[in-house]
Amino acid sequence: MGEGTVASTLITHIGELVTNDPRADDLLGVIEQAAIVIEGAHVAWVGRATDAPPADEMVDAGGRAVIPGFVDSHSHLVFAGDRAAEFAARMTGTPYAAGGIRTTVAATRAATDEQLSGHVARLVAEMRRQGTTTVEIKSGYGLTVHDEARSLAVARLFTEETTYLGAHVVPDGTTAEEYVELVTGPMLEAARPHARWIDVFCERGAFDADQARAILTAGAEAGLRGRLHANQLTYGEGVRLAAELGLAAVDHCTYLSDADVDALRDSGTIATLLPGVEFSTKQPYPDARRLLDAGVRVALASDCNPGSCFTSSLPLCIALAVREMGMTPAEAVHAATYRGAQALDRADVGALVPGRRADLVLLDAPSHVHLAYRPGVPLVAATWVGGHPG
Amino acid sequence: MGEGTVASTLITHIGELVTNDPRADDLLGVIEQAAIVIEGAHVAWVGRATDAPPADEMVDAGGRAVIPGFVDSHSHLVFAGDRAAEFAARMTGTPYAAGGIRTTVAATRAATDEQLSGHVARLVAEMRRQGTTTVEIKSGYGLTVHDEARSLAVARLFTEETTYLGAHVVPDGTTAEEYVELVTGPMLEAARPHARWIDVFCERGAFDADQARAILTAGAEAGLRGRLHANQLTYGEGVRLAAELGLAAVDHCTYLSDADVDALRDSGTIATLLPGVEFSTKQPYPDARRLLDAGVRVALASDCNPGSCFTSSLPLCIALAVREMGMTPAEAVHAATYRGAQALDRADVGALVPGRRADLVLLDAPSHVHLAYRPGVPLVAATWVGGHPG
Repeated sequence: MGEGTVASTLITHIGELVTNDPRADDLLGVIEQAAIVIEGAHVAWVGRATDAPPADEMVDAGGRAVIPGFVDSHSHLVFAGDRAAEFAARMTGTPYAAGGIRTTVAATRAATDEQLSGHVARLVAEMRRQGTTTVEIKSGYGLTVHDEARSLAVARLFTEETTYLGAHVVPDGTTAEEYVELVTGPMLEAARPHARWIDVFCERGAFDADQARAILTAGAEAGLRGRLHANQLTYGEGVRLAAELGLAAVDHCTYLSDADVDALRDSGTIATLLPGVEFSTKQPYPDARRLLDAGVRVALASDCNPGSCFTSSLPLCIALAVREMGMTPAEAVHAATYRGAQALDRADVGALVPGRRADLVLLDAPSHVHLAYRPGVPLVAATWVGGHPG
Repeated sequence: MGEGTVASTLITHIGELVTNDPRADDLLGVIEQAAIVIEGAHVAWVGRATDAPPADEMVDAGGRAVIPGFVDSHSHLVFAGDRAAEFAARMTGTPYAAGGIRTTVAATRAATDEQLSGHVARLVAEMRRQGTTTVEIKSGYGLTVHDEARSLAVARLFTEETTYLGAHVVPDGTTAEEYVELVTGPMLEAARPHARWIDVFCERGAFDADQARAILTAGAEAGLRGRLHANQLTYGEGVRLAAELGLAAVDHCTYLSDADVDALRDSGTIATLLPGVEFSTKQPYPDARRLLDAGVRVALASDCNPGSCFTSSLPLCIALAVREMGMTPAEAVHAATYRGAQALDRADVGALVPGRRADLVLLDAPSHVHLAYRPGVPLVAATWVGGHPG
């Protein structure tokens, strides 16, 4: 390399390259017998292997598939303790309730910053090994001004996609009214320097739609973009509120009226489905097919958290989406990559086209279909993040 | 080490050691704050870490869990080709049928021995990375004298637990009667040197109970122990036949009458459940709870094969057994280890007690519960097989 040039890498002999190019005729923009050139942090070229330009380094994919790195737009990684016993009880009949969050709050408050960041580091590395190259991380297990701010500061060590979720549940020893005052006042001020997003758990047992509106509005005034947990455990106003406010995404979406579906379609708000939660809480799965057929844009994310869903595996979420939610393998892979990026308002990731960030996954498989066809099997052979092997 | 001694390894600081010791009060024979000593290929000692004897080498488990290696008593790894397209079609409504086996038969016959053994090697390595330390491998995609014998010879390169499944499906161009003659005659003779077991797919579209009886009887006369696929797709006589013949195991067991359950309990034949199949064929799961409550011994296995279930992951099967089949995490782990060993008539694996083979898995988790609590996540940190790290 001469001075002022950046290193380039050619990955060739790719049996199937999923580009997610929105200009393609097929959903995934598949190129067979393909190659990709990375220059510095970005994709410089994609096409048929026989047409590939030269590069400084070459990697032979051996006929295997390459896909965009997964974009996990919903996780709660800043916590301490685990809830394996609560999980085991749930499997024998105890229903899931939002109140279990308080167990994790106590353990999180008691943990040091170093313990919290060590835990996040392990989970982010675990996600990376499973092909996730962009992850959103929420606060929400602190629930004091100090603990929410430090949770977000820890999250920010690992991602730009940090979300202030002070409004996760009303902590013990305060009323909902008092707590909303705190969340929209001093806690918001303390969270703001560390957060890009603001989120509310809008659900029976947590916050109602009026409270959610007040919190999201205060967040927007402070420069934070909104996203929302809604309609997970029962019907409610959350999804329509998200659509009305033009949020990037509304997450869970299990219990939807026809009016909710219409509102999602008309607003363009992404419906982010989290099937790991239904797997781990034994609840009904959201109906992805209904949403897709209505023209709603659907993303998949993990919701990795110690209570309702302690999986970090987007491959498992893809397999569940295909088995349980009526998605095709192509729709599920698209939802975990391209739609995940849209759910985070990110135009630089989620697709492998020139100019986007070189975040990609080499699969130990000839096709993206294997992510659903081979459930549970670790199929990630290698990842590149911002052009770097990782 | 002096002459004539064998190397010993102490693994200590084990947060939870699952021994499966049948003399323990709890199903898994759990020892907390434990250690284990390996001498040569075998377990020499287990107990509390504070009581551990010295050893040549020491490994610090860092508070994580150690469990016996998984014993996967049902797989079909000798094949060529894949059936990803058939899988994708099934997910959008095409039902599973046994006839799809013929697709794999054509590809398998066309493959060289080297191609077949390369494929098995990859899948066995993949299983090992997921904690499987003993695997049974069936023939059944050859269906000629030559192709069944070479399939078993390939399988025998990887395991002692080889199963002759000439009676997988009746191949094109022959009648059932002619084919049973072949399976019990020249094909059995050719298979016998390479096989420990004989198996029949006793199901609508494959072989009926009378044919299964004839094949298993001929196998027994040739020195092969019997096992059976039965009651997967509908009710039938297969399970009662297995119990009557005193087979080690009968596999699938989805459609069971009360008489079937009674026969299993009275015979002691292991009911091996294969939930990866139901996941990948969208069929009803077998009712493990009913079987366990009736006193039947239940094993879990993968059924890894390119048609009905292309997962090699016993952790996924454990998670599915807990989510879908009413098993507790402890019952599911026991079924994938101790009961798997019994399903193969193996007294040397499946438990970590002195004298058994040192086949064990170090989990990236504090407890066996995490195998169900963290579905899809690769939790195997290390394995030892016959005392060797691998």
